[in-house]
Amino acid sequence: MFESLPGFRDFYPDQCAVRNHLFRIWRQTANSFGFSEYDAPILEPLDLFREKSGPEVVSQLFAFTDKGGREVALRPEMTPSLARLAGARAGSLKRPIKWFHIGEHYRYEKPQRGRLRAFYQFNADILSEPSPAADAELMALCIKSLTALGLGMEDFRLRLSDRNIWYYFLAANGISEDQTAGALEIIDKRERVDRQVTLEKLARIAGESAENLLGAIESLSGVRDFERMQQILSGSTDCDDDALEKISRRLEDWRTLLGHLEDMRLMEYVEIDLSIVRGLAYYTGFVFEAFERKGKLRSLAGGGRYDRLVQKLGYEDLSATGFAMGDVTLCDLLSRKNLLPGVVSVPDIHVILGGSKERAIALSDILSLRELGLRVEYPLKETGFAKQFKQAGQSGARFALIYGSEELVADSVKIRDMGSGGELLLLRKELKTAIIDLLETGISGKSQ
Amino acid sequence: MFESLPGFRDFYPDQCAVRNHLFRIWRQTANSFGFSEYDAPILEPLDLFREKSGPEVVSQLFAFTDKGGREVALRPEMTPSLARLAGARAGSLKRPIKWFHIGEHYRYEKPQRGRLRAFYQFNADILSEPSPAADAELMALCIKSLTALGLGMEDFRLRLSDRNIWYYFLAANGISEDQTAGALEIIDKRERVDRQVTLEKLARIAGESAENLLGAIESLSGVRDFERMQQILSGSTDCDDDALEKISRRLEDWRTLLGHLEDMRLMEYVEIDLSIVRGLAYYTGFVFEAFERKGKLRSLAGGGRYDRLVQKLGYEDLSATGFAMGDVTLCDLLSRKNLLPGVVSVPDIHVILGGSKERAIALSDILSLRELGLRVEYPLKETGFAKQFKQAGQSGARFALIYGSEELVADSVKIRDMGSGGELLLLRKELKTAIIDLLETGISGKSQ
Repeated sequence: MFESLPGFRDFYPDQCAVRNHLFRIWRQTANSFGFSEYDAPILEPLDLFREKSGPEVVSQLFAFTDKGGREVALRPEMTPSLARLAGARAGSLKRPIKWFHIGEHYRYEKPQRGRLRAFYQFNADILSEPSPAADAELMALCIKSLTALGLGMEDFRLRLSDRNIWYYFLAANGISEDQTAGALEIIDKRERVDRQVTLEKLARIAGESAENLLGAIESLSGVRDFERMQQILSGSTDCDDDALEKISRRLEDWRTLLGHLEDMRLMEYVEIDLSIVRGLAYYTGFVFEAFERKGKLRSLAGGGRYDRLVQKLGYEDLSATGFAMGDVTLCDLLSRKNLLPGVVSVPDIHVILGGSKERAIALSDILSLRELGLRVEYPLKETGFAKQFKQAGQSGARFALIYGSEELVADSVKIRDMGSGGELLLLRKELKTAIIDLLETGISGKSQ
Repeated sequence: MFESLPGFRDFYPDQCAVRNHLFRIWRQTANSFGFSEYDAPILEPLDLFREKSGPEVVSQLFAFTDKGGREVALRPEMTPSLARLAGARAGSLKRPIKWFHIGEHYRYEKPQRGRLRAFYQFNADILSEPSPAADAELMALCIKSLTALGLGMEDFRLRLSDRNIWYYFLAANGISEDQTAGALEIIDKRERVDRQVTLEKLARIAGESAENLLGAIESLSGVRDFERMQQILSGSTDCDDDALEKISRRLEDWRTLLGHLEDMRLMEYVEIDLSIVRGLAYYTGFVFEAFERKGKLRSLAGGGRYDRLVQKLGYEDLSATGFAMGDVTLCDLLSRKNLLPGVVSVPDIHVILGGSKERAIALSDILSLRELGLRVEYPLKETGFAKQFKQAGQSGARFALIYGSEELVADSVKIRDMGSGGELLLLRKELKTAIIDLLETGISGKSQ
């Protein structure tokens, strides 16, 4: 007896159907938005992840040395592989590059609710288009992927923030460029620690003005609408012209982005929330997270602009924006909302066979009907009529197709609508055409 | 700059589309046959594979020790995981269990043409139904999965053999049960080595009668039709009644199997070929391989009955038959036959925007059309009309949807059939309904 590894999942048919439903909706939505699917190996050179993600992520990898002495790792995320593929063919790919990916990722974490060692992600990215129009297109895909699954305004919000605004704001408040990353990390962790702790950390960067700086940070973090954002940012009086100029241009980008989201009728899903700075160091512009609106307010998806990463990995300078949406929290939410498909693998037709002669006749019909794409089941072993009718009923099949000795003589077959109980006698040669019609109309309850 | 690992593949969108085409056809065909999809982790405890496959396969595994000290391996094949899943819930699963799987597998082999370290397989299995009807159903799925991809009789054959017949035949020729596995291995390798070598190997088992035994083996291996098979097997005069009785009952199973394949109109794809014994020790009954008929006659799929494996892994005794079909050789054949889909990700509609006012209007229409499942593209950056028309042409889009200043005034939009050049002016509020019709009918070449 064996068990699967901790943090890994078995997908029995009913669970596999749920997963495939999710994949189908993600794929359909991404295709409708003009994104093209790609894939890359689940196993990559360890250096690819080391370069991008830093030692902390590397410590959580499924990494090992292969038989050829190579340091390799199961991918923890998709972005490094995406950058590798797009970077390697940057010269010949049609621009903008709009790609998506659906696949599994691996992290060696302590398994717990919502944190598995193997999980699926839907990744979508737009490369080589730096304008806010690309950010809007990507956020629209993120929102529409959730609504296509049946979620609505009452279930989630896309919280929108901006790493650039934070850069400029910190600069305007006297934080030098090489201290910005440290300051953003403090801001990211601010809500989870004591105010005094944050203040002490900031003092190491800003010295005596830490108290003032924290006040300013708190006020920008509290921003929930664009008007207030403009007020606060134009109120930074004691800063240099360069920073003010950058802020002013950035507010123009915001107007463009919000305008597009407005025109797309999506602003009802969007909340401005500048408290979101997102942990990863490589984000460079607009960042966003989709959150549950009820319960634990967990994150459903997250993303943003990362204009410098592709170049950092050694390729051409390609601007980029992308998001990742995981399957675990999302399926949990969909399940609580009863938005996951129920019964699976219901046959269209369950065939009932009188005996071996009838089986011999039926087999070619069965294969013809399957060629139409219909799901057709029949008993592999000889079974009595009564038991077969019971099986047909339990299977949930739409129709039973009955091959008995009487039908055999007339080269015909009886078809029963399992819902209405209505029956029809069909000539076998008319079966294929008749079935297609009957699937639309059904057979009325009075047998003919 | 990074490269993917040797023997692993990147899937750029055009390659990913080919792969997805294959997956789609496999999935559709398996569904139509009433098989249900399942999945299991790509990483499993090493012991799961050690138990089933023996040291040779284990030496070719991507195996490593994880951070928790567990010996683990990337799956080289699906059958052990299938046995684990089905075995663990044998009591509650609906019988017969008809399951399929599409996924990746990993072997640490020297990469070469047709032999990669990561490859996809379509696996299908029927558990808990020992009758030849199950073997026939499975072979039918194997054949129909290939024909659904466009392959025909001229491209492949399913070669059919039987490990049981070999067991009984060897017993009838005086080979004891514990020597059978060794003898079958010699038979499997026979065509690749010198006759004298085979003879010497057999002498270790059969002593002085090795020459007679090899003659008998050669004659059974040469069997290509059922009539000859019956002749040879009933001609084994000097054997005990028990062996003769078993052979006689087994020939009855053959009649049942061939009868089903005949009734399914599939015998034109099937060749009896008793030279096929299949290497793996766990096969117990009918075995088969699908081969190319031209060129290198490579194997496209292989499978057979393995009635004892599930029990061997520590679970309930479940009879089983299954096959695996790989993607590498198959795609190579499909590509040479021009049976792979060509251009991919062609938009249904390419939107052309006069300027920012038109964009503001168009965005909500674009999202509505995407909700219909249509693939709709539009330029993310402001671009002149001429360039946009050129892009629309290059994209291969079926229709261009044109938002100009004139159309804006009338709250309308112009639609152009990119094939015929025909154009229509539509009111925006009628757009969604109109598009659905136009996708069927097109627009005639004379503009209206």
